[in-house]
Amino acid sequence: MSKTTKQDSATEKDKLSEFEQHYFNSYDHYGIHEEMLQDTVRTLSYRNAIVQNKDFFKDKIVLDVGCGTGILSMFAAKNGAKHVIGVDMSSIIEMAQKIVDINGFSDKITLLRGKLEDVILPYDKVDIIVSEWMGYFLLYESMLDTVLYARDHYLKPDGLIFPDKCSIHIAGLEDSEYKHQKLDYWQDVYGFDYTPFVPVIMAEPIVDTVESSLINTTRTKIIEFDLNTVTLEDLSFKVPFKIQAKRQDTINGLITWFDNVFPAPKGRKPVEFSTGPYAPYTHWKQTVFYLEDDLECEKGDVLEGTLTCAPNKRNNRDLDVNIKYNFKAGGVDGEQRSVKNENQYLMH
Amino acid sequence: MSKTTKQDSATEKDKLSEFEQHYFNSYDHYGIHEEMLQDTVRTLSYRNAIVQNKDFFKDKIVLDVGCGTGILSMFAAKNGAKHVIGVDMSSIIEMAQKIVDINGFSDKITLLRGKLEDVILPYDKVDIIVSEWMGYFLLYESMLDTVLYARDHYLKPDGLIFPDKCSIHIAGLEDSEYKHQKLDYWQDVYGFDYTPFVPVIMAEPIVDTVESSLINTTRTKIIEFDLNTVTLEDLSFKVPFKIQAKRQDTINGLITWFDNVFPAPKGRKPVEFSTGPYAPYTHWKQTVFYLEDDLECEKGDVLEGTLTCAPNKRNNRDLDVNIKYNFKAGGVDGEQRSVKNENQYLMH
Repeated sequence: MSKTTKQDSATEKDKLSEFEQHYFNSYDHYGIHEEMLQDTVRTLSYRNAIVQNKDFFKDKIVLDVGCGTGILSMFAAKNGAKHVIGVDMSSIIEMAQKIVDINGFSDKITLLRGKLEDVILPYDKVDIIVSEWMGYFLLYESMLDTVLYARDHYLKPDGLIFPDKCSIHIAGLEDSEYKHQKLDYWQDVYGFDYTPFVPVIMAEPIVDTVESSLINTTRTKIIEFDLNTVTLEDLSFKVPFKIQAKRQDTINGLITWFDNVFPAPKGRKPVEFSTGPYAPYTHWKQTVFYLEDDLECEKGDVLEGTLTCAPNKRNNRDLDVNIKYNFKAGGVDGEQRSVKNENQYLMH
Repeated sequence: MSKTTKQDSATEKDKLSEFEQHYFNSYDHYGIHEEMLQDTVRTLSYRNAIVQNKDFFKDKIVLDVGCGTGILSMFAAKNGAKHVIGVDMSSIIEMAQKIVDINGFSDKITLLRGKLEDVILPYDKVDIIVSEWMGYFLLYESMLDTVLYARDHYLKPDGLIFPDKCSIHIAGLEDSEYKHQKLDYWQDVYGFDYTPFVPVIMAEPIVDTVESSLINTTRTKIIEFDLNTVTLEDLSFKVPFKIQAKRQDTINGLITWFDNVFPAPKGRKPVEFSTGPYAPYTHWKQTVFYLEDDLECEKGDVLEGTLTCAPNKRNNRDLDVNIKYNFKAGGVDGEQRSVKNENQYLMH
């Protein structure tokens, strides 16, 4: 069984673009793994999905895409897998190897350092892919492309992917205090006009936890990816949404989050978890898109539009997001409160 | 006057090492500039140092090394400078140009994108260098090497550097709760032994704010850099320290911070600011080195040793720090409480 050495990794790294090096290097540091492990919603969901489906894992070959410290590989090995292959580009895999060894899994888990597209797996096909690939807003700096590569090249036709259903959700929120504090700051910075920053700040979605009490519209699922069938092309999408004000208030931003579902036998409730504002904290928090307009809403007013999302052409791990919206207010002053607009965002 | 364009910057970037690209790219993002500007201790200290020394700046040529959003350049221009040259490698300089223009300083401030070592300044010599180059622990990822290059190539013999005296300080602290919580976590991570992480975590200094009440020894200045004379070689150093317990307690870490002093005419108190635990918050916080030992101290017990610091050979923006210590306890049980040890750290 091949263990990766520093020499191997140096060779692998020579093949990488500068951006890839930056991206993978950011996972070298222990702090990011500490944060992910200590996200108990995340980690226990994976554990529960594996423990509750030991029948799926019994005597199976499992591939862990982006294995990090090896936690998912060990969950799988401990719960019946015949053999687990963990692949990661980051130097953290050297730590994972020590952890795998010290926990007695050296024979059951093989760790390979490199890009999944480059490493040579000891099996032609695997039964199960496990991967924690999700980024902010599900897709930002995510490893989904690598998971799809693994699926298309290594997964048996009837193989399983953990998780295999991921959906993005949207709602409106009132966040005037923070929004205006964040934007007004640039009006007078030590006596100088720093307002050229305002459009840059407006164009950047904010990753933060949001009090669910700030949400003032219905919520809706805008897209769901079935990992068994989704293609790379599907990750660029344009989808409609329609939400409705729940009270008299101001809608000045849209909040988004994602939910994840793991495979389960027919008839059994699958393990799932949400990164939304109505669920416990996860390190993914939520992603807020401030609207250029402050929409004065009455209960029942409708905000509909489209959300377009695609990798940025200059840097394909950045995301371009465009939100077109058409706010249709009701009542006698409905016409004057109605607004149409289009805002462009860049996650980077 | 040359303004930098995106084409220029692409050319400049081609010359950079991968690490340099990673480093400079991290300053492209607005968030880091927002944090630095909103650090009022930092920014107002620079402003006060310039405003209180208008005589120094009157009709002078000023070089702002690593100008970022241009705030120090504008302070200098507003307070009498004849001309200011701001140099920065990051794309943030495009934003700085907009801000300089909108505030009416287009004629007084020239911004150049590139490495200071590569750009061509419109003057052979400058009268004053201003720079906010300091990193965590003063030297981590700092731009001091660039400031020294600027001094040696562009500063007139009697020129001034703002700030020009920077010193590092050390004291002992009791931080058992956080230290043990941070280390004990790895004993049982979802049922697995993750203790291979412990040495990695111990070797990494922690950048955080520390309650001054946790400090339980005297404090001492371990080194001071006079920017008018310091050389690159001086930034690798080995210095002794000696501190004394102020109460019966446990010393299980050393806290370090740095202070900065700006030039002032003879007889006038200079502007200075501290990043220490006895001063108001700055974004540099403090840097804590956990000791391998928990030293049970009585009031008056002496902890002495040496601190060695040098750029890491593999990555010269990382810092190797070595702390040798000799804890000499007093009293009847002094001998059994005395400890000698040596701990190695890497800031990265």
